[in-house]
Amino acid sequence: MKFVVIGLGHFGTALAERLVAMGHEVIGVDKSMNRVEACKEKLTNVICLDSSDPVAASHLPLKNTDMAIVCGGADEGESLLITAMLKKRGVQKITVRSITALQESVLEAMGITEIIRPERESAERWAMKLSVKNYINLFEVSRDHYIVEIIVPAKLIGKTIAESELNKKYNVIVLTKLKQISEQNEIGAKTFILKAGSIVDAKTVLEEGDIIVVYGNKNDIKAMIDKNM
Amino acid sequence: MKFVVIGLGHFGTALAERLVAMGHEVIGVDKSMNRVEACKEKLTNVICLDSSDPVAASHLPLKNTDMAIVCGGADEGESLLITAMLKKRGVQKITVRSITALQESVLEAMGITEIIRPERESAERWAMKLSVKNYINLFEVSRDHYIVEIIVPAKLIGKTIAESELNKKYNVIVLTKLKQISEQNEIGAKTFILKAGSIVDAKTVLEEGDIIVVYGNKNDIKAMIDKNM
Repeated sequence: MKFVVIGLGHFGTALAERLVAMGHEVIGVDKSMNRVEACKEKLTNVICLDSSDPVAASHLPLKNTDMAIVCGGADEGESLLITAMLKKRGVQKITVRSITALQESVLEAMGITEIIRPERESAERWAMKLSVKNYINLFEVSRDHYIVEIIVPAKLIGKTIAESELNKKYNVIVLTKLKQISEQNEIGAKTFILKAGSIVDAKTVLEEGDIIVVYGNKNDIKAMIDKNM
Repeated sequence: MKFVVIGLGHFGTALAERLVAMGHEVIGVDKSMNRVEACKEKLTNVICLDSSDPVAASHLPLKNTDMAIVCGGADEGESLLITAMLKKRGVQKITVRSITALQESVLEAMGITEIIRPERESAERWAMKLSVKNYINLFEVSRDHYIVEIIVPAKLIGKTIAESELNKKYNVIVLTKLKQISEQNEIGAKTFILKAGSIVDAKTVLEEGDIIVVYGNKNDIKAMIDKNM
């Protein structure tokens, strides 16, 4: 696929690099020459251009583009203007990074369905992770259903999945167990990564220090944690 | 719990607000009076202070704090200095938002294990979502295991979970089905949210337009998608 990424800040650059790594053609656009220079070896092509200026923007290489991604973060109004200009130029697929709820509402009114909210997406997950005991990680599948990674509750250590009765009693299912593995990072310091095992079955034993990945309704998960911690 | 959040930009504010909503005490700190003013009604307390200045930082209310969260994004070195100062002051639990891989390596060397990377966390997920057909969302459980939300592959429409043989043939499990529900957003425009059903069983029928949530090894999931799309 061919992507045009407008705005090469931290998020735009990270996204563009990931897309290139997956084998796509990515043209990066930014009004700052420094940012464009910093990306020129990593992306398929880079262009230094102020996309919010209608005259300059008419030179954007939008022909045969599968998707335009607007990643500017700092100036919300500028990001909306660039989006409107892309719609006017007939770009079919537009994805926009949004900072505030109000900006997001305007994007939805413009018919933009793919809205990226890096700060809020991370804030939601980390607020839960940092404030609830034994939580390791949380994914929101829908507003009501979560996948959570938690350290095996003390009461369940040594039991099998069947004996834990998590499914029967709380209507949650255990997907897998994770182990923490020690590794060296790029400047030689020690760090930890998580390693997933295979899918668990009724006979899998929950050991001390294991991290289990659990899926269910958020109230059911909360009840399970409250009862077993 | 009592949190001190240093740096009230978009991410810091979003995180602090979520923590307050969950019933925690949150003190917000920023060197910009405008940012502090913008948060003062939402947080337990706010302080205008330059945390990278050792003299000013000695006034940070760190006593009885359960966790300090360093959210400054723009200046990487400043964020590292603030973190070092918190360590020196004896704060036991420190969580830091990081922008670059190098900054993250230094944090790991300092013994910081809770590192938040909003831009990269989102970029990883969105690169996959935007570039692979039928992907709706993706969560990385470990480096090898994903949870993905995908539109029901054409070949599986009308089949039950048992008939689809996803578990037997590809070693992946289907957790639930999601439906898209139409809603009005805060400025009155139409938008969509995802609604999860209950946990699926062998007899659940996969219907056209359903979104299924699947867990497994990333290669197994890829093989399943490649064969059934």
